[in-house]
Amino acid sequence: MIKIAVFGAGTWGIALARLLAVNGRDVTVWSAIPTELKSLSTTHRHPNLPGMELPSTMHYTADIAEACAGKDILLFAVPSPFVRSTAKKAAPYISDSQLIVDVAKGIEDKTLMTMSEIIEDELTKQKRSARVVALSGPTHAEEVARDMPTLIVAASEDEEAAKAVQKAFSTPTFRVYTNTDRRGTELGGAVKNVIALAVGIALGLGYGDNAKAALITRGNAELSRLGIAMGCKPETFSGLSGMGDLIVTCTSMHSRNLHAGMLLGHGKTVEEAKTEVGQVVEGINALPAACRLAKKYKVDMPIVQSVDAILGGRLAASNALASLMGRDLKRE
Amino acid sequence: MIKIAVFGAGTWGIALARLLAVNGRDVTVWSAIPTELKSLSTTHRHPNLPGMELPSTMHYTADIAEACAGKDILLFAVPSPFVRSTAKKAAPYISDSQLIVDVAKGIEDKTLMTMSEIIEDELTKQKRSARVVALSGPTHAEEVARDMPTLIVAASEDEEAAKAVQKAFSTPTFRVYTNTDRRGTELGGAVKNVIALAVGIALGLGYGDNAKAALITRGNAELSRLGIAMGCKPETFSGLSGMGDLIVTCTSMHSRNLHAGMLLGHGKTVEEAKTEVGQVVEGINALPAACRLAKKYKVDMPIVQSVDAILGGRLAASNALASLMGRDLKRE
Repeated sequence: MIKIAVFGAGTWGIALARLLAVNGRDVTVWSAIPTELKSLSTTHRHPNLPGMELPSTMHYTADIAEACAGKDILLFAVPSPFVRSTAKKAAPYISDSQLIVDVAKGIEDKTLMTMSEIIEDELTKQKRSARVVALSGPTHAEEVARDMPTLIVAASEDEEAAKAVQKAFSTPTFRVYTNTDRRGTELGGAVKNVIALAVGIALGLGYGDNAKAALITRGNAELSRLGIAMGCKPETFSGLSGMGDLIVTCTSMHSRNLHAGMLLGHGKTVEEAKTEVGQVVEGINALPAACRLAKKYKVDMPIVQSVDAILGGRLAASNALASLMGRDLKRE
Repeated sequence: MIKIAVFGAGTWGIALARLLAVNGRDVTVWSAIPTELKSLSTTHRHPNLPGMELPSTMHYTADIAEACAGKDILLFAVPSPFVRSTAKKAAPYISDSQLIVDVAKGIEDKTLMTMSEIIEDELTKQKRSARVVALSGPTHAEEVARDMPTLIVAASEDEEAAKAVQKAFSTPTFRVYTNTDRRGTELGGAVKNVIALAVGIALGLGYGDNAKAALITRGNAELSRLGIAMGCKPETFSGLSGMGDLIVTCTSMHSRNLHAGMLLGHGKTVEEAKTEVGQVVEGINALPAACRLAKKYKVDMPIVQSVDAILGGRLAASNALASLMGRDLKRE
């Protein structure tokens, strides 16, 4: 039986933990927060995934050494700001026979590393190594928790590692593709939230479906330009982790980033929007890194840069979109 | 002043005619149906574009020779089944100094030609020639009628012709890009409706946002495979007329194809779905040509082929989606 540890007890980690457990994997959930574990192990429910029940076969631990011991796969599902500290803490207990899978999405502001690169970085620092795979795509946790059909991609330059993850995670309703462009796969997941902010701003200003589809399309084009400049493969951005994730984030009313953008479009300040959304707005966190990447790789990213100007108070939302529309006419 | 004739008095033709007229073009609308023209010229309104008023400077004629005479641009906006007959009728009055723009979307079943290829074919038969440009993208007519921001692409292998259309059609709210892949641009507009049927079926079966985003992404992948096999450019399918139009068609509840698909997913027959939608369901019309193109160019198009099997009664909708999800695990 494949043994998997899931680091993190948020909605995505727990939705995946349940999926794996009901499909015959031996699953242990680790969290740094003992009260979370106590609640999960006694109620078999997650407060933000109503209706989902966790199988009683799942294990829980707050001890990271115990979580790592004897596992085939270690799944990182902590919020992106905690990926580095979690990797640092887990590294002494990780061996190179283990597969590491990351589902956290983001770019570290200081280093411009993706989440799986951060994990590798912490392993290297402690003279450890492991095969690392990014798992990403258009996936609302709420739907995976209800066994609603979902397609996702396992990405690693080590194709055998990606295939092993494909085999370990696939179920009749959760279909895993593979690709070899890990960085491109992770870049899409990180930058999509900035584009969702732009779409939200447009909707908040009263723009319609035509502008929404155009912003998603042009947003994907600038994401692709950045990715290609960074050595990623163009086709990754037309795939599930690129276009697919961008579509689900920009068209679902559940998206916090879309919601935050709409509030900005309605004329609220960044602080007001953050307060009203009440949860982390990843697009706001990802924005500085996205802008620095555009600058570093000398890529024109007008949508990302407009969102940055709006959030920085250098441009009124109503002018920004008009200015995006009014750029010089050119080739697609 | 640029002089433009618009053939066809449907919502898209009239929305574009108004846009051009209010932006200083001299516009003449031609229709084969005199009562349509009478209603437009007296009420200055279109029954399916509520709230929109047509400028009194617009001209109307049922005489195709008069429509063509002295115009810089002839815009074909008739329904796709009437493009060939309209081109045939207009050809004697078309000169090679005129630009032809097509906005009708579809593939002719018998010849597998796109709409602009049909126009060229009829011109050639009558020993005429003209530069032909396809204009396509994510564009609800209802939004263009209200001056809501819209991005679109003018496509022609004759780049000067595409640029002339870009210049003639661009306004502050209607931004025209160019590309040189006319066939790829038109292919997206024709096949998207079949993918929208698949998305509708999935939603009708109770699938969620994850499956919707995945079907749009994988649908775009199989459309791209077909286009590449047909000699089109891969990047066209990541652009406004590919991904952009697919997104707007598959995520807008106004889409007739999405609606028809949902009815099929609810277990209605094709005839019942057609009757309930009440208007032309372009995806059903485009399906035979899409399947024949897949066969001719030996391209695997599992989504298109599943929709064909469902509509042909060879596969239950509920099994089709499960079978799409259960295909062999593979690379993206």
